[in-house]
Amino acid sequence: MQEKILGVLGGVGPLATVYFADLVIKMTEAKTDQEHIPMVILNHASIPDRTAYILDNSKPDPLPVMIADAKRLQADGCSCIVIPCNTAHYFYDAMQASVEIPILNILEETVSYAEKTVPNLRCIGILATEGTVVSGAYQSVIQKHNLDYRLPTKEDQASLMHIIYDQVKAGEKADICEFLRIVGALKKAGCDAVVLGCTELSIIRKDFNLMQPDIVDSMECLARASILFCGKKIKEPS
Amino acid sequence: MQEKILGVLGGVGPLATVYFADLVIKMTEAKTDQEHIPMVILNHASIPDRTAYILDNSKPDPLPVMIADAKRLQADGCSCIVIPCNTAHYFYDAMQASVEIPILNILEETVSYAEKTVPNLRCIGILATEGTVVSGAYQSVIQKHNLDYRLPTKEDQASLMHIIYDQVKAGEKADICEFLRIVGALKKAGCDAVVLGCTELSIIRKDFNLMQPDIVDSMECLARASILFCGKKIKEPS
Repeated sequence: MQEKILGVLGGVGPLATVYFADLVIKMTEAKTDQEHIPMVILNHASIPDRTAYILDNSKPDPLPVMIADAKRLQADGCSCIVIPCNTAHYFYDAMQASVEIPILNILEETVSYAEKTVPNLRCIGILATEGTVVSGAYQSVIQKHNLDYRLPTKEDQASLMHIIYDQVKAGEKADICEFLRIVGALKKAGCDAVVLGCTELSIIRKDFNLMQPDIVDSMECLARASILFCGKKIKEPS
Repeated sequence: MQEKILGVLGGVGPLATVYFADLVIKMTEAKTDQEHIPMVILNHASIPDRTAYILDNSKPDPLPVMIADAKRLQADGCSCIVIPCNTAHYFYDAMQASVEIPILNILEETVSYAEKTVPNLRCIGILATEGTVVSGAYQSVIQKHNLDYRLPTKEDQASLMHIIYDQVKAGEKADICEFLRIVGALKKAGCDAVVLGCTELSIIRKDFNLMQPDIVDSMECLARASILFCGKKIKEPS
């Protein structure tokens, strides 16, 4: 069997990309360097901000750079592409149409995993950037799975954006109390689980070791899907 | 000024490569995604083992794959190449001869940094793989800087290889007591500092937070050199 190469279209953001690669390596059953999944990672940090463009189409459009990167990963022999950025999935259809290799969909993988692992799941809380929320991407995947969803209040959404942009992306410590207050409010409003639908929130989960099964991490779901796609086994955390 | 792209020839090993990229991002002064250094990372895990080849030239030769990867990074528009693997620097001259862009030399960067930061440095202890030790690469760089060096005893070197291969590369926790016993023995033998001349040892330093100034980490030195080469500022740990 020919070895599968994982193409990572990263840089969105750079830290989340590296954490994603780290997760793939740590979650792959491997005892030597050579047993790991080969990867090509484009950490193209200068891709224009996705949320900025989704909210205001006169801002720089990230799509042309992302399509160029997807084509480069295909030319480099990758077997599939992953984009460790939920917001960038606003452009999923256009990107998938530009290459022949499959692009794994982080939203699909996350909602499917939540459905499989959270008992009696009926309602999911969506924690994501303003861009992802406005695009309605998670809402439509959740509805396709016949599930219900809740969003943070407008005020909590603004606070979440502050945590993502001014704290995590800026390399500062996240305000964990404020973050968990927002999570708690969604649970109180009837959510059986929340999805961390922004890879910067995955970094908070790691930094503060938030491993509850009802906090479903999109980054981890994408890592699982990548490992299985590449024909490797998942090493469950001990 | 045209933006500089950092080419990372990785996979040797995969975990060290990702930790290197993480270090570059965390040590770069940047407040937004777009201010980070763009990177192309080839995490080509299946590159044959370097130490195995250096010790026995009948084993698979990693050089052809590494030269192909270096050329690919050059073709992808990278401004320089870094290899976050000390042992692979056995092939440094052949690799540098195969591309026009510079390859930053982890050994040179490490010994220069030790010289700059450790007061009254005269003697350096070398902690590295059997392949690196046998190749004499660190010994000759240290002598070029008019410094003296010490190696672990034969028994300690075997124990260090066990830590690198059977613990860190295998995804297991390192035996920190044994590791620090080997470091301590080198200091007792007259070393003013030790270099962690193997990127798997850099992972131990991170996992156990060994931030003493007389433990000089080759990975961190390469990250510093990369950031400066790409025209960015270093963010010192707070």
